Formats: sequence, structure tokens, C-alpha cells
Amino acid sequence: MEYKYARRMSEIKASEIRELLKLTEKPEVISFAGGLPAPELFPIEEIRAVNNYVLDRCGEQALQYTTTEGWQPLRKWIAERMNTQLGTSFCDENIMITHGSQQALDLSGKVFLDEGDVVLCESPTYLAAISAFKAYGCRFVEIDTDDEGMIPASLEKALKEYPAAKLIYIIPNFQNPTGKTWSLERRKQAAELSAKYRVAVIEDNPYGELRYEGDFLPSVKSFDRSGSVICTGTFSKIFCPGYRIGWIAGDAEVIRKYVLVKQGADLQCNTIAQIVISAYLEQYDIDAHIDKIREVYRRRRDTAIEAITRYFPSDTLFTRPEGGLFLWVELNEAINTTELLERCIAENVAFVPGYSFFPNKCRLNTLRINFSNTPEEKIEEGLARIGHVLKQAGFQ
Amino acid sequence: MEYKYARRMSEIKASEIRELLKLTEKPEVISFAGGLPAPELFPIEEIRAVNNYVLDRCGEQALQYTTTEGWQPLRKWIAERMNTQLGTSFCDENIMITHGSQQALDLSGKVFLDEGDVVLCESPTYLAAISAFKAYGCRFVEIDTDDEGMIPASLEKALKEYPAAKLIYIIPNFQNPTGKTWSLERRKQAAELSAKYRVAVIEDNPYGELRYEGDFLPSVKSFDRSGSVICTGTFSKIFCPGYRIGWIAGDAEVIRKYVLVKQGADLQCNTIAQIVISAYLEQYDIDAHIDKIREVYRRRRDTAIEAITRYFPSDTLFTRPEGGLFLWVELNEAINTTELLERCIAENVAFVPGYSFFPNKCRLNTLRINFSNTPEEKIEEGLARIGHVLKQAGFQ
Repeated sequence: MEYKYARRMSEIKASEIRELLKLTEKPEVISFAGGLPAPELFPIEEIRAVNNYVLDRCGEQALQYTTTEGWQPLRKWIAERMNTQLGTSFCDENIMITHGSQQALDLSGKVFLDEGDVVLCESPTYLAAISAFKAYGCRFVEIDTDDEGMIPASLEKALKEYPAAKLIYIIPNFQNPTGKTWSLERRKQAAELSAKYRVAVIEDNPYGELRYEGDFLPSVKSFDRSGSVICTGTFSKIFCPGYRIGWIAGDAEVIRKYVLVKQGADLQCNTIAQIVISAYLEQYDIDAHIDKIREVYRRRRDTAIEAITRYFPSDTLFTRPEGGLFLWVELNEAINTTELLERCIAENVAFVPGYSFFPNKCRLNTLRINFSNTPEEKIEEGLARIGHVLKQAGFQ
Repeated sequence: MEYKYARRMSEIKASEIRELLKLTEKPEVISFAGGLPAPELFPIEEIRAVNNYVLDRCGEQALQYTTTEGWQPLRKWIAERMNTQLGTSFCDENIMITHGSQQALDLSGKVFLDEGDVVLCESPTYLAAISAFKAYGCRFVEIDTDDEGMIPASLEKALKEYPAAKLIYIIPNFQNPTGKTWSLERRKQAAELSAKYRVAVIEDNPYGELRYEGDFLPSVKSFDRSGSVICTGTFSKIFCPGYRIGWIAGDAEVIRKYVLVKQGADLQCNTIAQIVISAYLEQYDIDAHIDKIREVYRRRRDTAIEAITRYFPSDTLFTRPEGGLFLWVELNEAINTTELLERCIAENVAFVPGYSFFPNKCRLNTLRINFSNTPEEKIEEGLARIGHVLKQAGFQ
């Protein structure tokens, strides 16, 4: 049958890149493409113990339906953690558990976006945020972004030019895909502009805990006096992604709206996953666990930086992120990284071409490297392979 | 701040009933309101063993990201189960795992519905399907429904009258809220009309396995030659709802569209939940487990029917469902069941007033009784309390 799809489906297409990257699932390929954490660091033994503890103590509750808002002790822990780490002042009422922080983005689209509305975003920005918001028929306006974050003058210009703007979407810590971190001053300015123009900010923070050097910075939310900033977070990068537990945090009024749309979307998150994570946080030292992750990822980042310096052409520009999972590479303007990817796949090495991260503009000579999911010796070898392909193509 | 919400938010409101029912969470209340399975039947010991088995064998994989489509062995099991039980001819490519079957409804809205589109549904129909679809700005047209399902002449009339109709939403087995089951003939006719007018059917089947008497009937999908019927299913009622694992099944082409929208919505379902359920199905006898559930629920249904016969006014009409979790009561037309609920809550007994299940029409004298979540002696006592309130109000 010829299905009568919704209009949005003409915008939601299978990504060519995703098809290309399916070729990289063979074990001989060194892939810098995904955004996967290192599975060898998952606390499997602890999770096993906590699972048994939860099933023994409250198995019936853990396997039954629960509230849409989510498991109260977990929401309380998240509020307190954010208050300590990010300078917010949340309590459990400000938190709703989501199915990964990806769902927090999808529900943000549902709560705020009508067809034709404008989302202001960094340039480049997170690929799957583009997909999430696009499903609501929005347009994207990319704000000029430098090493300290969105440039306030550009943001203000866009806010004036697009009064239909509904959301400002930002990732201030170790941004995906660039690895860049916003300065303190820019955080303050973003909060001020959001309040002045009454446009909500979605402050996405999946990587904030993974800082390898420098000081932790307060969130944009910590400078928010009007309630316009809404935050997301996730256990995917500090615990494990398989449980799909993230959250959305904001003023109680707006969180009540998220609860209403989540009821229609999927009723609630996995009950046992929420209780297991909550019990883990009670019984184990998550800070010690995060320290372990930081140490491994810091070494992997350093290895990636050294290898790019050594093997890539001398005119290569790249970021040196203070944390997170990614670094961003800008090659000679003559290079199209999608063509480069095809050649690299033939040499059993993969990355994501940068163009996927620009909703409108196109920077064909950029690419994203994930360093969290590959052991150091393979990082060295994989980047050397890319360097070799570049050299063969005549770039030194 | 005054948030600039999407237009749809003016339609998505907190339900008064939900607020009223919050008062019923006290242990002294006998509640027939929820749609909860009996937690004392959850296979907790088996889940404990399977969890440990999975974490020991493939812990890293179980806690890592996986594909949007879902765990292949689980999708294969579902396809084979549906083929045996429902007369379909699916393989793993026809199945995508969803976050409960509620997400299958939400994603159906996303794939098919533009603002102003029409959804044809039974009258009454599942409350949370109304919420899921309403988020996409659709209108509902209720099709006249009798004891055998939607009346084909009414369905065809609506299909002619509303060429913008995009979906026909039905629950042919032990419908929520009425407990009614469609006849074989009506199933065939629905498939034919769907093909003739090229309008997709969402055949929702959360309760189909829970039959207490009579023969299992083939699905509407089994009569579908054009690919217009899309099916949902769930482990919530035959295993446990806490894991939030359901599915959507249909032609490979349409399932690929669901995969695209799920990528933006939440990337994927809980990995370990999928692998644990899959391992359970391999290692244990789910049919024996479902038989145990059937036996308990059958007795509860019988107790509910006897109690309504004994304690409710003599002019009460009610359904005698052959399976599922609910029965439907129609009281004297002078009775408003929302007012009745308030009086009943004062007597520590609760139900859902019927009007919530009608997207447009209003039948104020109806109510839904859930019998799966309450032990027999409490079913008897709770229904006697409702009968007593009715008697006090002058209805014999």
C-alpha cells in the first residue's frame, strides 16, 4: 500500500552516513564514528549485586508500573547532584526522568515547537537534536559560535530577527561534535538574552561530569533568574547507556507540561532501571567510578591529540577538549570528508563527516573523532591510517 | 517566565480524573481504576536468575547502546509468536521494539498524523491512545461500535465522509475499556475497508494472550493483503510492565519509517531489558506462565461479574469479557459516574468514569472496572461498596 505519511516524514530521511557507517561494524575496522562509552568500564559486578538486592527487597514494585515523573529518590539525587555540580537550586519536583536525554530533546520539541517555529542552535550542533526537533517541523538558525560558545551579538541579532524563535539549544560543556566548552561570561550572557527575549534555553549536558582538566563551570541555569532555562542530563556517560535513563530539569510549571506529554508518549520510564540506579548511587561511590572513567578517557584524548599532530597534514586544525568524548578536526578546504570517509572505510577506519552536524550551512572539510570507545594503541593506529589516506590523496 | 508553548499544549491538559484518583493511593482504598497486572504473579525469581545470566555472559553488550530496531533474537521471537497466535507472516525485519506499546501509538502519530488529520476509533476507546494521537493535532471520529466491534457500515460511511482520515485505531481483543472482542467477520471487513480506502489500521493488541474462555481469533492483520494493517504488542501484561518493552509490527517499508522517527525520539529501547526478556523466553516456559495468569484473572473476572450481579441496581448493564483486564458498566441514565466516583472515594473504593474514554461523545452513566489487580475477596467487598453507594443514592 502507498501509505499516507505525515508531512514531516519527507524531512526525516535515512542518513547516507548511517548507511556508510553500517559497513564499519566489522571487527577489523577502527571506528571513531560512534559516541559510545568504553564498555570495559561499566560496573557490571556492582550492577549485578544491586539488581539482586532490588529484586529481593522490592521485586513486585520494581517490575510494576510507576509514576510518569519517575522514581522519587532518584529525582531527589539528581536535583542534589545538579545543585552541587552546576549551581542550580532544584528539588525532586523540578526533575522528570526521561528515556535517555534524547527523549528530553524529543519532548522539548513536543512541548514547545509548532510547524515553522525557529530553533537557534550552535554551529555545528548535535546531530540527533536536529532529528528530534525537525520532527516537529521547525527551522534551524545557526548562531555563529567560536571557542567560547555562541557569540552573544549573533545570538541577539537572531533573537531580534526571528521573533518566532521558540528554543535556544546549547551544549555548553565539551560540546558534541566540537568538544568546545563555553566560557563563564558567555553562560551569563546566554541566560540574560534568553530572559530578555523570553525564549527558552535547552541546556543539554550529557558530558559535563567528564572533565579531564581545568575547573568545573556553573551551568547557564545557575544564572537564570526568569526560569527560562531547562536542563537535560543522563546516566549514559557516567554509568551506562543501556538503561536509557536521563532527565529533564526546570521550573515546576514547565516540568508539569513535560509530564503531560510523556504520559501520551510512553507513560513512564523503565521502573527497575530507575530503582537499580538509585540503589547503586546509595550503595557505591559514583565519584570514584567517574574518576576511573576520567582517567581512561583523558589518556585516550591525549593519545588522539598526539596522533593527529603526528599523522595529519600540517595545516590541520583541531580542538583540544577539556573533557567529553569528541574532538573536531578541520582539514584543508579542498578536502571533502564524505569522500575521505569512503576511502578510509576501505582502509578499515571510520569517523563522522562534519557536514551532518550543520542543519543548514555546510562545512565539507570537517570531521568528528570519538576517542572514548577505542583503546590507546588502536587510536594511534586508526588515526595513522586516516593520515596515510590523506597523504595518498596528496595532503601532507 | 511565560513560556511560549506549542499550540498542541492547549489540548493536552492534566486530567481531573487523574487528580481525583491520586486520592485513591491510600492502602485502605480498593481501586478498580488502574490497568495494572497482578504483581504477585511476576516471575521475580526467574528474572533474578536471567539477569545474572545475562550480566555474566554479555554484561558489556547488555549495558551498551544497541540498534534502534532492537535486539534481533527478541524481534525474531515476536514475529514467530505473532505468526502462530495471530495468523500473520512476519519475520524479524517486520518488528521494531518500542518503549511499551504506548510508544508504538505515539510513533504512529508521528509517522502518520498532520494537524487536522482524522483518526477513526471505536466508541469508547483507549484513553491514552487519545492522548498519544491528540499530541499530533488530530481530530477523532468515533465509529458506532456494538458487541462484535466497529459496525462496517458506519466505518465505511466515515471513510467516505473523511477523505483526510489517516488512521483507523482498534483494539479487537478484550478492548480497553469495554472488554469486548471483535467477531471474525468484522475483522475481515475492517481489513477490506482499510485496503479499499487506503487508510492504515493500527491494530492494538495488549491483552490478546489473556483469553479465559472461547477460541483465539486470527488478527485483522491476517486478512490484510495490501499491507495497510500495523500491529502493536507488549510484554507488559504477560511478563511485567516495569521493563517497558513492547513492539510495532508491519510491512518492512513502514517499519523503516518507524525506525527513523524512533532514532530522533529516544535512539533505542533499554538494551538489558530486551536481552533479559529474550533470555527468559529461551530458558523458561512463557506459556505455562501465561496459563497461571489466565487462571487467576479468570477467577477475578468471575468474582467481579457475580458481585456486580448481586450488588448493583437491577437495571445495570455490563460486559462479560472473554479475556483481558476490564469490564464495562452502564448504569441508569440518571447517574453521573464522575459524581458517583467522588462519593465512592469517600467510601474507599474507586473506578474510572466512562466519559474519559470518549474523545467526543459523552456517556456520563458508564464506568470501567479493572479486575486483574485486586484479590477476589477485595473485588467482592469493593463492588459491594459501590453497590451500597448506588443504593444510598436511591438506585436499587
